[in-house]
Amino acid sequence: MKIGVLQLNPIVGDIDGNAVKILAAARSAKDLGAEICLTSELALTGYPPRDLLLYGGFVDRARERADKLAAELRDCPPLLLGSVERNRTGQGKPVFNCALWCEGGTIRQTVRKTLLPTYDVFDEARYFEPAPAGDPEANLIRHNGLTLAVTICEDAWNDKDYWDARTYARDPLEEAAAGAPDVILNLSASPLFLGKQQLREDMLGAVARKYAVPLIYANQTGGDDDLVFDGRSCAFAPDGALLARAAGFEEDVLLVDTADPSANTVSKDDFRREAETWRALVMGTRDYVRKSCFSTALVGLSGGIDSAVTAVVAAEALGAENVTCVLMPSPYSSRGSIDDSLELAKNLGVKTLTLPIEPIMRAFDETLAGPFAGYGEDTTEENIQSRIRGNLLMALSNKFRALLLTTGNKSELAVGYCTIYGDMSGGFAVISDVDKTGVFNLARWYNAEVAPHIPGAIITKPPSAELKPDQKDQDSLPDYAVLDGILALHVEHQKSRREIIAEGYDEETVNKVLNLVRIAEFKRRQAAPGIKLTPRSFGTGWRMPLACRRDL
Amino acid sequence: MKIGVLQLNPIVGDIDGNAVKILAAARSAKDLGAEICLTSELALTGYPPRDLLLYGGFVDRARERADKLAAELRDCPPLLLGSVERNRTGQGKPVFNCALWCEGGTIRQTVRKTLLPTYDVFDEARYFEPAPAGDPEANLIRHNGLTLAVTICEDAWNDKDYWDARTYARDPLEEAAAGAPDVILNLSASPLFLGKQQLREDMLGAVARKYAVPLIYANQTGGDDDLVFDGRSCAFAPDGALLARAAGFEEDVLLVDTADPSANTVSKDDFRREAETWRALVMGTRDYVRKSCFSTALVGLSGGIDSAVTAVVAAEALGAENVTCVLMPSPYSSRGSIDDSLELAKNLGVKTLTLPIEPIMRAFDETLAGPFAGYGEDTTEENIQSRIRGNLLMALSNKFRALLLTTGNKSELAVGYCTIYGDMSGGFAVISDVDKTGVFNLARWYNAEVAPHIPGAIITKPPSAELKPDQKDQDSLPDYAVLDGILALHVEHQKSRREIIAEGYDEETVNKVLNLVRIAEFKRRQAAPGIKLTPRSFGTGWRMPLACRRDL
Repeated sequence: MKIGVLQLNPIVGDIDGNAVKILAAARSAKDLGAEICLTSELALTGYPPRDLLLYGGFVDRARERADKLAAELRDCPPLLLGSVERNRTGQGKPVFNCALWCEGGTIRQTVRKTLLPTYDVFDEARYFEPAPAGDPEANLIRHNGLTLAVTICEDAWNDKDYWDARTYARDPLEEAAAGAPDVILNLSASPLFLGKQQLREDMLGAVARKYAVPLIYANQTGGDDDLVFDGRSCAFAPDGALLARAAGFEEDVLLVDTADPSANTVSKDDFRREAETWRALVMGTRDYVRKSCFSTALVGLSGGIDSAVTAVVAAEALGAENVTCVLMPSPYSSRGSIDDSLELAKNLGVKTLTLPIEPIMRAFDETLAGPFAGYGEDTTEENIQSRIRGNLLMALSNKFRALLLTTGNKSELAVGYCTIYGDMSGGFAVISDVDKTGVFNLARWYNAEVAPHIPGAIITKPPSAELKPDQKDQDSLPDYAVLDGILALHVEHQKSRREIIAEGYDEETVNKVLNLVRIAEFKRRQAAPGIKLTPRSFGTGWRMPLACRRDL
Repeated sequence: MKIGVLQLNPIVGDIDGNAVKILAAARSAKDLGAEICLTSELALTGYPPRDLLLYGGFVDRARERADKLAAELRDCPPLLLGSVERNRTGQGKPVFNCALWCEGGTIRQTVRKTLLPTYDVFDEARYFEPAPAGDPEANLIRHNGLTLAVTICEDAWNDKDYWDARTYARDPLEEAAAGAPDVILNLSASPLFLGKQQLREDMLGAVARKYAVPLIYANQTGGDDDLVFDGRSCAFAPDGALLARAAGFEEDVLLVDTADPSANTVSKDDFRREAETWRALVMGTRDYVRKSCFSTALVGLSGGIDSAVTAVVAAEALGAENVTCVLMPSPYSSRGSIDDSLELAKNLGVKTLTLPIEPIMRAFDETLAGPFAGYGEDTTEENIQSRIRGNLLMALSNKFRALLLTTGNKSELAVGYCTIYGDMSGGFAVISDVDKTGVFNLARWYNAEVAPHIPGAIITKPPSAELKPDQKDQDSLPDYAVLDGILALHVEHQKSRREIIAEGYDEETVNKVLNLVRIAEFKRRQAAPGIKLTPRSFGTGWRMPLACRRDL
């Protein structure tokens, strides 16, 4: 069987645009010789549509467009289309997450998703009613004497032999396998975390082997707010071997030939951590800007490594001609920071703008002289500087309609080493799920593997916010290697204070770090969205109470 | 039977503090003659604990403290304690939401919640595994020859005779009723929306009548981030009549006597919209500030009605001596705005601080003169003013450790008539779920029913942001009555453009308003939390994609 996998980059909510894209890709697949095709999950609406799904009109429009698309596909091979339909049973959640079997100009069969991920960034139980239990034909499509087992994303992620602990009682794949399918199809929208593709290929290969049936997995590609979908749709032989893999981080139409393994192609890929990070940041930034209908972006360059890496990503994502870097030196800025920033901008070929902030700082000092009389300097004065810069950057953003990218990393965001309404200002937080250690690694990798654009001093000098004389990050924070170790355990692995200390970290340091994480929660609540790269980022999947006591 | 309802205001995560509170309340109930007691849902952890539940150590600590509390309660009547326990079945979500039957110094039985609300602000399917089906004794406790049917919040909200459409297939109340209980107990954490108590009393009374059994409902009270729990625990006779009601918006220990209806008390209450709004705003603000470990607050007074109402709420919630109002006039501020603000502050007895912003505006103009040369004035210059004020307010907040309250209303937040990092700056958005019409109504109600503190001119003059000469809100927005009508349909009732037009609104106006709502999504993503008062606020229950196409 020749199966066309349509790996596309939909825009969430753009039902018409996505339909046009799907039709074009189906025609390409037909030209390649596909006998049937499948899209990724919710390809017609884009994933995740979130609360758009609470609008019945939106769901109905998707269904109407699916009918029209099915008609437009009349001359194409049959297509499994990821979309939604209203739940009209009178019980349960308003919508079903579906695969619509478009054949002969119409929708002939509907397969509904059973397992609804509701953890981390996923909220599917909020919207979707699961497929009812008890129908052995529910996930099967009979076509030309063949039986297709159709599953949607999570439906294939609950195998009792693969996982130590299962999240769900049902296993729709096992139920479908009882129907002796000739192939298992899986429509997915599986967002990236670093290293996830190896997990997917291992798990899906194991499932194909278990049932001794070829398995085809179609993933979405593209950036959608905080999520990056890395594509890499793939296919497995009945013995679990990888048969074919589509491109990563871009659209692709993959033809899978289950009968002739040698006719398939496995796209080359680079699974190194920095390589994946780079591609994810570039795609995530490009798509956020583009899908927000912007074409240009601003980056405030401090002379530090975070803003340097953000600028490098922006230039790659949007083209250097579409990026303006803004220098806003204060009396505490070192000459080196200014020179390094200008050199970086020159290397990248981006425009720069320099706006010294001292006159505005003086105006604030004078305005606040009365109420502040008798009080010593503290972080207040540092925050004022940062917020002056935020105001200038937003003014440029407003005037020139350029999206402001924020430059903070995950370590800073974790411990609150950042100013709300100051350096946290902006529409998109490019590296907010990369810890400081990762930022350094990425900068070195970029200079070695992409282009040596980042001046060495930016990488080698000790990190500093330069908000007061001779300030260094390590004056108030533990060494970044220690900090990032503690944060990874606490934020990504939900380890408690006691467990982290038991792993050998100094008790006082752990207490200090966890306390900083706790008191910074209010800042994160108002942070810009940023690109998720780890199993747990400070984005839509981080839902902490604010006014609480927290001793974790 | 005499049943003590412990209606408390826990602090989320403060397991020890909440346990102490519960013990004291149980002793009070004992003194009143209670034979058994019940708390609200998750009284030991506070509701909602959100992602604290993902930390196994937190869940274990709650269980350890529950054991200790059970021992401490040895001399008290048996108590049903709302808390959590780990799911150790090896399948499903990590935690059960429980009622623990504490009797004779130990936990003798555990009832698990079955129906897990996962809509709007509720994310229970993210954390909790439902009670397994099939055990007819699961919700029953046998005590002294009596049978108690124990349900947790949503468990009682799925009656097929009461609701036109049901959310869930199971009905744990119906299952428990098959065991011929003598009383139905319900541990709840039911956050307010205006008018909800009438719904609760109607629905719960109908259920009591259906099963001809007394029903006791225990609710949490207090503010927790965006949620306000209004208490008003109540009890119903077997004929559905209201037997007893606890106080609204405060802690209370309610003794219910199911044998002697005349021995019960029904607390007086005021269900008028403005009265409920007022009490919710005051409690929500007080608890957010207090539970965040602040004691003082700042409000920027513009001379308009929104900041006036916010100041009035703050003074009531925190005491006038703990509130500072800040006036930051610009050249566009009218004399009337300044005078009205000062008069309001004087009436309330709060401190004021006046910081004219013209010198800082000039410094920004000079700094931006180069890049802005050749460009005309637009909203950029208005936003700069707003962000100068935000910076000043945050500087005062930082220096004096006073929580900044933001003053925007729901109508503004809906259409983006507010400046991100400007007037949106602050830790808590008091009136962000009150539309402009509601703000006017509340101001009039306050002057008539509480104290005539708000100067008449603040209520009667046309609303203006005063960010440019002679500016009025209605220069760029429809009349507020029209705007708020459209917004209620779209935001609270998920009506589409077409449906709103069909209700008689002008098509062009509807298109304009819905477009404004769409393009303001990025601002709301970074907005401060605020008090939910309607069935759908822009808080944790509003989850819209950002970089998308949206035609609802």
